[in-house]
Amino acid sequence: MTIQDQWFDGAILRLADPQNQRVWSIIVSLFGDLAQGPDDRISGAALTRIIQPMHVKPEAIRVALHRLRKDGWVDSARSGRSSVHHLTEFGRAQSAAVTPRIYDRDPDIPHDWHLLMSEGSGSLDDLLLTENYISIGRNAALGSGAIPPNCDDMVVFNVTARNVPSWLKSRLCPPDLIKACGSLADAVKDVPSSRPAELNLTAAQVATLRTLIVHRWRRVALRNPDLPPMFFPDDWRGQDCRASVFALLDTLPKPDLNALNAPV
Amino acid sequence: MTIQDQWFDGAILRLADPQNQRVWSIIVSLFGDLAQGPDDRISGAALTRIIQPMHVKPEAIRVALHRLRKDGWVDSARSGRSSVHHLTEFGRAQSAAVTPRIYDRDPDIPHDWHLLMSEGSGSLDDLLLTENYISIGRNAALGSGAIPPNCDDMVVFNVTARNVPSWLKSRLCPPDLIKACGSLADAVKDVPSSRPAELNLTAAQVATLRTLIVHRWRRVALRNPDLPPMFFPDDWRGQDCRASVFALLDTLPKPDLNALNAPV
Repeated sequence: MTIQDQWFDGAILRLADPQNQRVWSIIVSLFGDLAQGPDDRISGAALTRIIQPMHVKPEAIRVALHRLRKDGWVDSARSGRSSVHHLTEFGRAQSAAVTPRIYDRDPDIPHDWHLLMSEGSGSLDDLLLTENYISIGRNAALGSGAIPPNCDDMVVFNVTARNVPSWLKSRLCPPDLIKACGSLADAVKDVPSSRPAELNLTAAQVATLRTLIVHRWRRVALRNPDLPPMFFPDDWRGQDCRASVFALLDTLPKPDLNALNAPV
Repeated sequence: MTIQDQWFDGAILRLADPQNQRVWSIIVSLFGDLAQGPDDRISGAALTRIIQPMHVKPEAIRVALHRLRKDGWVDSARSGRSSVHHLTEFGRAQSAAVTPRIYDRDPDIPHDWHLLMSEGSGSLDDLLLTENYISIGRNAALGSGAIPPNCDDMVVFNVTARNVPSWLKSRLCPPDLIKACGSLADAVKDVPSSRPAELNLTAAQVATLRTLIVHRWRRVALRNPDLPPMFFPDDWRGQDCRASVFALLDTLPKPDLNALNAPV
């Protein structure tokens, strides 16, 4: 086993999400990262080359693809003896909806916040589901920018935070999210620190590492509210994690789909 | 019966609070208006002269004084065959606490509002009782000026209201308060409109009318939150009522205590 292979195997272990190795979810991350375009295709063989090194059996990949087809995320076609897969229009829309948040290296923290307070919780629930609102209690939600229409039945305040108590901080950033963020930050720093000077990864190997990083970061980034620093617990390492994730991704440029799909 | 007596009797009927003619409460309003100083005394005979015209029997005045003594509001002393009454230190403190709100002709509406939100309701309940906070939901209260100490466990926002829905307006100004305010506004306009050109009221008669006005206004003023206009329902007549109350009081200058106490 070469030094490079050792490093690659070690990186896989280090980057694998200890919480979520569901294969269908990994495939979603993979397509989102490498094949989100309407004409992008990934062959079954390429998928196997990318995912199998994560200690996932080919059978598990087939089951996951079956599920993704059933749920309308992925479509597949046969091409001779092999198959090619692509995101459906629905899958691309879902993917595109979260891409800006996942790939934002330096999110703008809005300055113009407002608070909506409802009498019951019904009308607020709708907003929390469909808009980018942050619940801060049974009947209150924080948002930024323009106030949505249909808020006539809510109290609307423009707000500036003066104090954020620990109970709200840990509601916004619960301990498991703090831990997931911290351990990912550590992982994406460890992996490049042991990287051999000479490294010639295949396109599939680059895709494997990228997928692992993006998959795990996605689960942190999408739960990380874009709030001013005072809303976060002291042990929140969101900035550190984000910077280290993108520093590592930058050393692993997205491989070309043709290179990925080319028979080995 | 003279025209003046007719007008005086009519004014009493018009100014009497349809909701609250509890005698002890009338006596509290009377002392607050006319005898709030530490050396101020009102004789039993003067009290009777002021209150009896409100269709209150002397026996009811005695019972009310007994209750006020028992509750520590009023103290009494005998002076020969008659008695004199005064507010206790406690009574004066209670009276002084609400005097600024009752007698404010043109309350400053604060511009610097903040919202406190608690996790449970306990800590907020304390503030709502002891400070000038306005509840706007189970776990939220509006206040102005400096943020009190001991708010570490609360979310604190500086706020500017953008929308106040009708459910909050009618919580802040419930229908019975709107009605009480409107009917008082009508009464204090009606009474001077029928006032005879020649009017020579006794000190006691002036005190009777002042007491009725202050007593009824007190119950509106102390429930009227000092919030910006957008928080009030359209049919709220607080400004109109306040202006008319003070216009009428200005025509009935506070009588001198010596004049009130002088045997007739």
